[in-house]
Amino acid sequence: MVNYSKVNGGITAPQGFLASGVAAGIKRRKPDMALIYSKASCTTVGVFTQNRVKAAPLLVNREHLEKSDIRAVIINSGVANACTGSQGLDDAHQMTAWTANELGIKKEEVLVASTGVIGTYLPMEKVKKGIEMTAKKLEKDGEDAAQAIMTTDVIKKEIAVSFKLKGKQVTVGGMAKGSGMIHPNMATMLGFITTDISIEKDALRQAFKEVVDKTFNMITVDGDTSTNDMALVLANGLAGNEKLTSNDKDFPIFQKALEIVCTYLARAIAKDGEGATKLLEVRVKGAKSIEDARKIAKAVAKSNLVKTAIFGEDPNWGRIICAAGYSGAQFDPETMDIFIKSENGVVQTTAKGAAVPFDREKAGLVLKEEEIIFELHLDEGVYESKAWSCDFSYDYIRINSSYGT
Amino acid sequence: MVNYSKVNGGITAPQGFLASGVAAGIKRRKPDMALIYSKASCTTVGVFTQNRVKAAPLLVNREHLEKSDIRAVIINSGVANACTGSQGLDDAHQMTAWTANELGIKKEEVLVASTGVIGTYLPMEKVKKGIEMTAKKLEKDGEDAAQAIMTTDVIKKEIAVSFKLKGKQVTVGGMAKGSGMIHPNMATMLGFITTDISIEKDALRQAFKEVVDKTFNMITVDGDTSTNDMALVLANGLAGNEKLTSNDKDFPIFQKALEIVCTYLARAIAKDGEGATKLLEVRVKGAKSIEDARKIAKAVAKSNLVKTAIFGEDPNWGRIICAAGYSGAQFDPETMDIFIKSENGVVQTTAKGAAVPFDREKAGLVLKEEEIIFELHLDEGVYESKAWSCDFSYDYIRINSSYGT
Repeated sequence: MVNYSKVNGGITAPQGFLASGVAAGIKRRKPDMALIYSKASCTTVGVFTQNRVKAAPLLVNREHLEKSDIRAVIINSGVANACTGSQGLDDAHQMTAWTANELGIKKEEVLVASTGVIGTYLPMEKVKKGIEMTAKKLEKDGEDAAQAIMTTDVIKKEIAVSFKLKGKQVTVGGMAKGSGMIHPNMATMLGFITTDISIEKDALRQAFKEVVDKTFNMITVDGDTSTNDMALVLANGLAGNEKLTSNDKDFPIFQKALEIVCTYLARAIAKDGEGATKLLEVRVKGAKSIEDARKIAKAVAKSNLVKTAIFGEDPNWGRIICAAGYSGAQFDPETMDIFIKSENGVVQTTAKGAAVPFDREKAGLVLKEEEIIFELHLDEGVYESKAWSCDFSYDYIRINSSYGT
Repeated sequence: MVNYSKVNGGITAPQGFLASGVAAGIKRRKPDMALIYSKASCTTVGVFTQNRVKAAPLLVNREHLEKSDIRAVIINSGVANACTGSQGLDDAHQMTAWTANELGIKKEEVLVASTGVIGTYLPMEKVKKGIEMTAKKLEKDGEDAAQAIMTTDVIKKEIAVSFKLKGKQVTVGGMAKGSGMIHPNMATMLGFITTDISIEKDALRQAFKEVVDKTFNMITVDGDTSTNDMALVLANGLAGNEKLTSNDKDFPIFQKALEIVCTYLARAIAKDGEGATKLLEVRVKGAKSIEDARKIAKAVAKSNLVKTAIFGEDPNWGRIICAAGYSGAQFDPETMDIFIKSENGVVQTTAKGAAVPFDREKAGLVLKEEEIIFELHLDEGVYESKAWSCDFSYDYIRINSSYGT
């Protein structure tokens, strides 16, 4: 039995990582640039948006990840540097060059991430200044970085867990931003995971890919897959463990830690979705395949009608089964039982695809909580899945009808 | 050149059709049952929801359409009769039997449609009374029927056009309800088209399928495909024209009329989407294939972020190109020009996938109108498509967080 302990901090909790966040003036009076730095070279893998429109930083990162191990990630919020053509690409390259220069490392050792408005050029004077500031400010407490990558996020998202692996203490930390344009398809967000484990690149890639499919790719806020999504994991090896491979019997120990960190961040993103007042967790059990389980969970989590019903605290199970029905999953609706759960209890609304009488007052009480679970039980197989989302409130409309271009 | 004239009325404009609408008490104090009746037997085809969860009326209709030509359609709003198991199926059958009995026709000659809350059984006593009332009230003015099929619709949707075909005057009429759970996948709505043309069943099926793919399947309000969607076209032959086949050179004349009627109804549904203040028409031109054109048009029309931007009258073209990017269509974003149009003028926001300077004041003026057009020009082929949607307002949230189960 491996013991995972939550430790303070986020991306700087693992050995050898420093970070900083500053207000460079890209946004008005808010932190908008962050830097992650590792004292040792990092085995690094990333997953990137499936959107055909890919922001400039993603193109630069693909190139650098092929060429080199990584030492630093420079991040800005406020401007996404997407749909900015060759100038945008030059700007993203320039950001890595300036950062490398400040840190005395190679340009290829730097990755870059941007989030914010699409179709606007970066104010490169301010960005240059910001890079200098972040480099000077690098510190062991990475809290400012988690703050600086936020856009319409309300709550800062960071976590770290520590565990023993082959006699060494290993730590995995992470931070993320989410809030809007959140819909799984690698993952509609920025996520940065750091760890001091020593691990082979292929093993890290496999571990991360599988975890992302269960976590960041299972969240949705508004169904819009962004042009800038990326999640990175940097492993600097400073824990000093014997290098981990994917065949190693301890591989699952590390992967579990990664899953804890990514699940925490994914849930935090869903809970802090634009205008959200509640977190929704959709659990599907008894599906014929993992794909079917995931399709159903995601469709229910994504449905505007399910999300408005939760905002209205209405046990509208008809919208749940309807969304499952159009998910594209193979299943027989007449095997479906539906339960609505929270800390206030459990109510079954549906048996074998049809209504069962239930206590409306109790259902109202269950839905009053801030974290709601919909459990959909099929009777067709052994596969299960979870997806996370939030309710759809007046504030979602307010935020997005006024988030300026 | 064929001349299509708009004529008064809707489904009862073609010869030999009667209709009625009554308040049977399924809903509180609102009309909730409608009947369409044809004096002559109708060649009839339908398209039905792709949702795996299919409401009971759809199952009954499939059976009746295989067995028989059609004389009548009985419709109720308030209760969808979906997820109601074998009792729901019995109820839907019973509705056709009662209607047949009132009209002195066979059960198989009656179709049935329901819309409203999912997972609730029909109040069959009231339904029986309602059927008797609608049968007694049948009249040449079908306005009450168009009223009675509405749920959260604000505006009644009906239209009729008349034209010459082979020396005979032919009329096509239609009515529809939409408003919520509106997302193309055959078509998330109820649509009833009537015509007095004489036409072969296969020709009618082909004409309707192609028109539905361009019209009802190109609208979206909230991305939720309903369990009850159906569109029917009934052709009673009373215009007395020589029976039309799909090889006939005059086939396109009829199909065009059908397209006029369905386009009008589709646009009306989008414009009257729940909480809508504006109609959005998305036009895609220059795509590599019709599938790509349609995917892009639908993804942009469906995007919550595009829809909130329109509500905010914000020329946020980044969200438009982002939605195109995740649509699944094959295209090169760097060939895309974007124009925002309305009666107040045209503004180009994007050239070759990147920002172009534009007059923000003018863009604001263009977006002030009630009907907004986004035109996306690709440089990859000759295919084009249109999709319709509406903006996303506070009222959408209000309506759907309180529309009771």
